[in-house]
Amino acid sequence: EFKGMPQITDKSGWSFKPRGRLQFDAGTIDVPGSTGRGGFGGETRRARLGASGDLPGGFGYKFEFDFAASQLTVTDAIISYETGDAEILVGQFNTFQGLEELTSSVHTSFIERSAFTDAFVFERRVGAALVINSGDILVQTGAFTDNMIDLPGTKNWSLDSRVVYMPKIGETQLHLGGSIHYNELQGGSTVRYRQRPLVHFTADRFINTDRLDADNEFGLGLESAIISGPFHAAAEVYWQNVGLSAGMQDPTFFGGSIEAGYFLTKGDTRGYKSGTFDRSKPASAVDDGGFGSLQVNLRYDRLDLNDAGIIGGTQDGYMASLVWKPTDYTMLLANYAHLEYGDAAFPTGTGSRDYAADIIAMRAQIDF
Amino acid sequence: EFKGMPQITDKSGWSFKPRGRLQFDAGTIDVPGSTGRGGFGGETRRARLGASGDLPGGFGYKFEFDFAASQLTVTDAIISYETGDAEILVGQFNTFQGLEELTSSVHTSFIERSAFTDAFVFERRVGAALVINSGDILVQTGAFTDNMIDLPGTKNWSLDSRVVYMPKIGETQLHLGGSIHYNELQGGSTVRYRQRPLVHFTADRFINTDRLDADNEFGLGLESAIISGPFHAAAEVYWQNVGLSAGMQDPTFFGGSIEAGYFLTKGDTRGYKSGTFDRSKPASAVDDGGFGSLQVNLRYDRLDLNDAGIIGGTQDGYMASLVWKPTDYTMLLANYAHLEYGDAAFPTGTGSRDYAADIIAMRAQIDF
Amino acid sequence: EFKGMPQITDKSGWSFKPRGRLQFDAGTIDVPGSTGRGGFGGETRRARLGASGDLPGGFGYKFEFDFAASQLTVTDAIISYETGDAEILVGQFNTFQGLEELTSSVHTSFIERSAFTDAFVFERRVGAALVINSGDILVQTGAFTDNMIDLPGTKNWSLDSRVVYMPKIGETQLHLGGSIHYNELQGGSTVRYRQRPLVHFTADRFINTDRLDADNEFGLGLESAIISGPFHAAAEVYWQNVGLSAGMQDPTFFGGSIEAGYFLTKGDTRGYKSGTFDRSKPASAVDDGGFGSLQVNLRYDRLDLNDAGIIGGTQDGYMASLVWKPTDYTMLLANYAHLEYGDAAFPTGTGSRDYAADIIAMRAQIDF
Repeated sequence: EFKGMPQITDKSGWSFKPRGRLQFDAGTIDVPGSTGRGGFGGETRRARLGASGDLPGGFGYKFEFDFAASQLTVTDAIISYETGDAEILVGQFNTFQGLEELTSSVHTSFIERSAFTDAFVFERRVGAALVINSGDILVQTGAFTDNMIDLPGTKNWSLDSRVVYMPKIGETQLHLGGSIHYNELQGGSTVRYRQRPLVHFTADRFINTDRLDADNEFGLGLESAIISGPFHAAAEVYWQNVGLSAGMQDPTFFGGSIEAGYFLTKGDTRGYKSGTFDRSKPASAVDDGGFGSLQVNLRYDRLDLNDAGIIGGTQDGYMASLVWKPTDYTMLLANYAHLEYGDAAFPTGTGSRDYAADIIAMRAQIDF
Repeated sequence: EFKGMPQITDKSGWSFKPRGRLQFDAGTIDVPGSTGRGGFGGETRRARLGASGDLPGGFGYKFEFDFAASQLTVTDAIISYETGDAEILVGQFNTFQGLEELTSSVHTSFIERSAFTDAFVFERRVGAALVINSGDILVQTGAFTDNMIDLPGTKNWSLDSRVVYMPKIGETQLHLGGSIHYNELQGGSTVRYRQRPLVHFTADRFINTDRLDADNEFGLGLESAIISGPFHAAAEVYWQNVGLSAGMQDPTFFGGSIEAGYFLTKGDTRGYKSGTFDRSKPASAVDDGGFGSLQVNLRYDRLDLNDAGIIGGTQDGYMASLVWKPTDYTMLLANYAHLEYGDAAFPTGTGSRDYAADIIAMRAQIDF
Repeated sequence: EFKGMPQITDKSGWSFKPRGRLQFDAGTIDVPGSTGRGGFGGETRRARLGASGDLPGGFGYKFEFDFAASQLTVTDAIISYETGDAEILVGQFNTFQGLEELTSSVHTSFIERSAFTDAFVFERRVGAALVINSGDILVQTGAFTDNMIDLPGTKNWSLDSRVVYMPKIGETQLHLGGSIHYNELQGGSTVRYRQRPLVHFTADRFINTDRLDADNEFGLGLESAIISGPFHAAAEVYWQNVGLSAGMQDPTFFGGSIEAGYFLTKGDTRGYKSGTFDRSKPASAVDDGGFGSLQVNLRYDRLDLNDAGIIGGTQDGYMASLVWKPTDYTMLLANYAHLEYGDAAFPTGTGSRDYAADIIAMRAQIDF
């Protein structure tokens, strides 16, 4: 059976599936010229290969690595064991940060996720977790060390938990959830929260707290979504509290976004599965002689890195995207964003740090 | 179906094929001892793995990465869309440089390609291209940024185009082609043209322009080949003009080679497909109880890096190779080269820069 | 057919098999606090993917690379040719160091191999070898350059040979072997022998010769094992002689270990194949409704890096392991070790270099 790549199974409980994705981005960033920033850019955003499979006895594995920019980084490396509604995970994986972060990058509605998901340094970590998925309830709880690239070495550890309620009422899928995160940092650590202007093909972070000496981080996230026929909406908020090393007041930074989307093509709807958005499959794909699916999305994306005397800057982002999926596994994406910055990291020629950036970006994507 | 690796297909338009190659080289370089260069050497020349496949609707993908020397580099990473005679490519791939550069390294007639293909820094780049392949005509045109490893970051871009006429007259395959290349370099760039003595398992480049401050490069290539039964011949020339940053005269460097080959074993011929040499398949392989194929090749390989006051050196290379293919997917290669240098980069004890190098090299190769 | 991953074959002599392994380790190292060492640690020990296959005509290939810690390293990269009892290998592979080093890391009885196998810097190298496997006799002989990561560049080379006699007497498998190794180092080389306290998730080497200017190394190993039903025992010793560059007396360092193991579960036995331990397969796996296999192992592990005036330190290690294999391809491993050091590299607060380390470590493993 093919699902992008061949899915090979046998009756004794074995299965094996290679997987991969390719994303190429290009676009322009328009900011006041006197900042010395912006311009045309492009890159291979993700080039991933991996494999997943099942073994007899309820065991499974998943591997995935990314070699965009010719630097290999491991994304997922997981051993799993499933019994009934419970699953135990050991390895490197996401720390249950929230709806959009856990949704695969090939199923997002914009070229990049909301600003806070990058700014607060969400990452995969090596650890162990218990996941309960029973009917409309999903509970994910784990203890983690650090990302593989930092191990052995760091003594950081974290506890992360997420709960989702996801009833389907008639044809309408609802999603309500929350997550909490405690991250203990080893002595002498720093944190830095910063974010690019929507797109990844630039090194310029227009808002940036710079390095803060910190002992720990405490995060709280709330998430909600609804999918009803061609329409979907989603809203997420996240507070990140930092325990500073010096005896200063601990800041709490905030990020959140709200979006709505609509399929212009008949019969299309956004995919959803087990607490995240999933693949949307065109009702009439080009290989069936159709046009594929066409979806428009609007988003407001807020990030506030100003608190307790720290001036990291603020972002109010207004975005639109057009998503064309010729087939289930291909996507062309056009994005426009107008970002209004306060206290930006790069001043203009007149010293102003309050200005706007306008971004146009395209993506060509295939996954399998 | 197996073609080296399993080719898995289904009737709805899906296919998937893993691919790989392994090349191990060893040999000696004999030069005047007083240069302090040369000697025995060896290496893993290429160790590549990848996958390619088709998706319903005319879409396809190709991935390949190389981890020889334990450093991962991405070679191809391509999304394709095919309709009729036209194909659109997005991703990282070769910039249509010429016949030998575009011929896979497992199908070349010598252990390395002609000197100019390395000297003029032919590389894969991220971009988009349109390819028309209609009957005997092939037209390839693309716009490119830079190699993935340099992105995001550089602002280099290039335009590259190649045309091939490839009629088959009776049993004789003809190939005539030309290509033009314009490469705009970002401010403050340098170029450096240099070349090893045929083999790759040394770091010594005997001819070398060293770094030149440059604004752009303009390349022009001409190529021709003929395959007739056991015989083949090929000739390529390439002029590389450099737009220097300072107000000096722009140099034009030259490279070219001419070769002829003959199969000593009965019924064998060199493979050709869509504008490049392709796999040669022994008429009587060892798995059929035969000897495989045995081919001898001769080549003259010229490189001239002296022009407009720049003394990069010249090479006149006289080469012979013996190619034994026990089966379609295995190769043992023996090479001899006599290279006469003028204005070489490394002087002898008496200060002479005009001397010769003699190289003997072997390769063991498998691909799948 | 599935053996962990799908094994795809066809009747003309082709086969292809992807392969992989994941190992996650965690534990604690308890040493005198005044050394400033030890504590809790964890890591992704191995994350490997690869593929092996056969081609018509007796040719084969094997690839494997490791991306634990997000750094890609090539383990095996081999072209092979088999005819009758003889096999020719070209590429990068192990230099026939001994029973435990050649046994796959997914089939060892402790979380790490004996101390000497790391201390004496056993590694894979690029070279060519002839292997004869006839009845109860195995002879392996090869000539090698260096590890891929060091090529091209180094001029090191080695000759390595190993002989094994492995009769099966009734139900009892015997194993007797020896190996010799000569390693010629290029001018200006150093060697350094050192070892971690059993586990890999620390950077602390408690015994350490530090760098010695050396011209060559000469190694001699002896190995023996017995498997009889649920019981096995193995003993290995290895002498490493170093040819120092200066006119000093050449030291000979020593390492060796002896172990015994027993399966507590009925019907289980340790796997063995062609001169190394192989996969042990639970008689009653959890996917058959059983418990899997449970094995206890005890080991004494000696390493002596003191000789000829060089004080690298000594280790007397007393170890126990509990190996639970729920299925053929999954393993949970618990280890305890008490290591007594003499002349350790890190002094205590009172300047003592003779003290003990206690280690508790766990591993979760899957391979396919």
